Amino acid sequence: METHGADIYSASEISGYHEDEIIDFSSNINPLGIPETVISAAVNSIKYTGRYPDINSRKLIDAISAYENVPNEFIFVSNGAAEAIFRIAACLKPEAGLITAPSFSEYEKSMKLFGTNINHYPLKEENSFKIKEDVLNCINEKTDIAFICNPNNPTGQITDKGILEKIILKLKEEKAFLAVDECFLAFAENSEKYSTVDLLNKYDNLIVIKAFTKIFAIPGIRLGYCMSSNEELINNLKSMGPPWNVSTIAQAAGIAAVEEREYLKRTVAYVKEERSYLFNELKKTGIKAYESHANYILFKTDIPDLKEKMLNRKILIRSCSNYMNLSRKYYRIAVRTKEENKIFIEKLKEIMR
Amino acid sequence: METHGADIYSASEISGYHEDEIIDFSSNINPLGIPETVISAAVNSIKYTGRYPDINSRKLIDAISAYENVPNEFIFVSNGAAEAIFRIAACLKPEAGLITAPSFSEYEKSMKLFGTNINHYPLKEENSFKIKEDVLNCINEKTDIAFICNPNNPTGQITDKGILEKIILKLKEEKAFLAVDECFLAFAENSEKYSTVDLLNKYDNLIVIKAFTKIFAIPGIRLGYCMSSNEELINNLKSMGPPWNVSTIAQAAGIAAVEEREYLKRTVAYVKEERSYLFNELKKTGIKAYESHANYILFKTDIPDLKEKMLNRKILIRSCSNYMNLSRKYYRIAVRTKEENKIFIEKLKEIMR
Repeated sequence: METHGADIYSASEISGYHEDEIIDFSSNINPLGIPETVISAAVNSIKYTGRYPDINSRKLIDAISAYENVPNEFIFVSNGAAEAIFRIAACLKPEAGLITAPSFSEYEKSMKLFGTNINHYPLKEENSFKIKEDVLNCINEKTDIAFICNPNNPTGQITDKGILEKIILKLKEEKAFLAVDECFLAFAENSEKYSTVDLLNKYDNLIVIKAFTKIFAIPGIRLGYCMSSNEELINNLKSMGPPWNVSTIAQAAGIAAVEEREYLKRTVAYVKEERSYLFNELKKTGIKAYESHANYILFKTDIPDLKEKMLNRKILIRSCSNYMNLSRKYYRIAVRTKEENKIFIEKLKEIMR
Repeated sequence: METHGADIYSASEISGYHEDEIIDFSSNINPLGIPETVISAAVNSIKYTGRYPDINSRKLIDAISAYENVPNEFIFVSNGAAEAIFRIAACLKPEAGLITAPSFSEYEKSMKLFGTNINHYPLKEENSFKIKEDVLNCINEKTDIAFICNPNNPTGQITDKGILEKIILKLKEEKAFLAVDECFLAFAENSEKYSTVDLLNKYDNLIVIKAFTKIFAIPGIRLGYCMSSNEELINNLKSMGPPWNVSTIAQAAGIAAVEEREYLKRTVAYVKEERSYLFNELKKTGIKAYESHANYILFKTDIPDLKEKMLNRKILIRSCSNYMNLSRKYYRIAVRTKEENKIFIEKLKEIMR
């Protein structure tokens, strides 16, 4: 059973195809690829790897501070966003944690290390997997944290800021935190309308998680971060794990990446167009696809063993059978390049014939 | 108060000298520098960072398996050895843990996250900081793990395999683990005589921790690993933290590094010669230096504020004032290149005049 997408190495072993032959629709990486400036910064940084990285990631935090328009003191940087999630769990050692089902599996996994009781708020297909106000009923005196992925992975649904603010307030009453995972938000149109970064100053029980991985297409470099105005929490995050967690290369890549404003704009426009293409083509074939605000699409089909059939055609997709409240009928595909998306649709039609 | 050496970035801020102007004797990195093949492998790997790293680090584990002559199933790879230490603590959540004092601070820090009671075995100056058999008296029914750094950091002392085996057996009776940190052992002469890697098959309560960081001079890339024949432990280590913890670059660098057998031999010879030079020169000045089996030397001096005086001369050394059982009279210096070691001795004499 796969826990995550992106395992092109196992797909290669199973299929017998070389990794480079397989088009990976299972991991949600920016289809524009790594910006040239980020590649250069990473390559140039190799000559400095004979030194320890800055244990405090000072220049990187300065750069993120300017990019996000938040003070340095709000920022913790990590070896991918997944490490931030684990450190948050280690800091809070929550008695009970609230997550949506389905969602990214690492929230639950990280909390379970600390014996947390997990409450699941079920996202219902009839509501297009949207979070409704009844989520507030899932918060009680035992709740220490809720994780909300926005847009949600794997559904692509976005949660309105109004509801998020109500959740923050209810959690505040219970002395609990809300962690909003905005790793995919930069792919959405009008992301500033949805982002909770501007609420950080207002609520010290809010944590916003972000990644360079997806939006700057550098999953192999490992770089994420989280932000909170709760300085005690940020300081605890630093001590709740190994020092030098962010490599010299990741620090250099991150500093270069945040300058890429134009690339971010192009990304949103490109993903919008290609997501529409995939969505409409899926619909034409009669497959049920769900509206997405991210760089991936969830869909539902009765075609048996679609993942295997696709892999035989050198395309790797993400089966969603291991997500709570989904089933083996659900799959997630990334929005990739125009050419690759066309190939996906062609192969799908071939299978359906 | 500094927790670690290697913070040349803070030293630069304090002194006003640029990082590149300061010679860093505070971090214990191979003076031969990064092997060319490792630099090439790291640079070449950047073009693959648009993909997630192999979540199972398959090729890297194959390479380490061949290098260490242990089965793949024994190996867990990590984002620097420090991450392996934290994951070991997370797996065992020890009730009580035994460490030597002084030693590397991360053993204690990692266990404290899980509420572990820490017992310190005092290393005494009159014993040249050597571990004696009375360490066995520090093991009781509450002990779940002991960490022994071999050679020890910062003393450079090595522990005989006979004593280590007695410790393993006593811990085995208590269903407890011994973690031997051999991060600096490859710098020692006859390291195979001291290494416990060949005991892994015999004892399933033994864990050996190693790093690429020091011996291959790549602290900026972050790569460590640990080994145990206890498959349950190795499997738990994989789930006790974030996935994709080892970057694409670290995987590539590690695969190249383990081929560098000749470099390892040259390292041992070079470090031996330069360590003798530093040791003898320190002795000549009347400073008390301690015999070392690693690429660093501990020494004791009454010169006040030696660290600050050295930094004024563009040399960063490690004050050992924050180590238990040491004091502000103790300092640790790395064995660096012949030229740099000469500069260190010159500057020291200048201060002493």
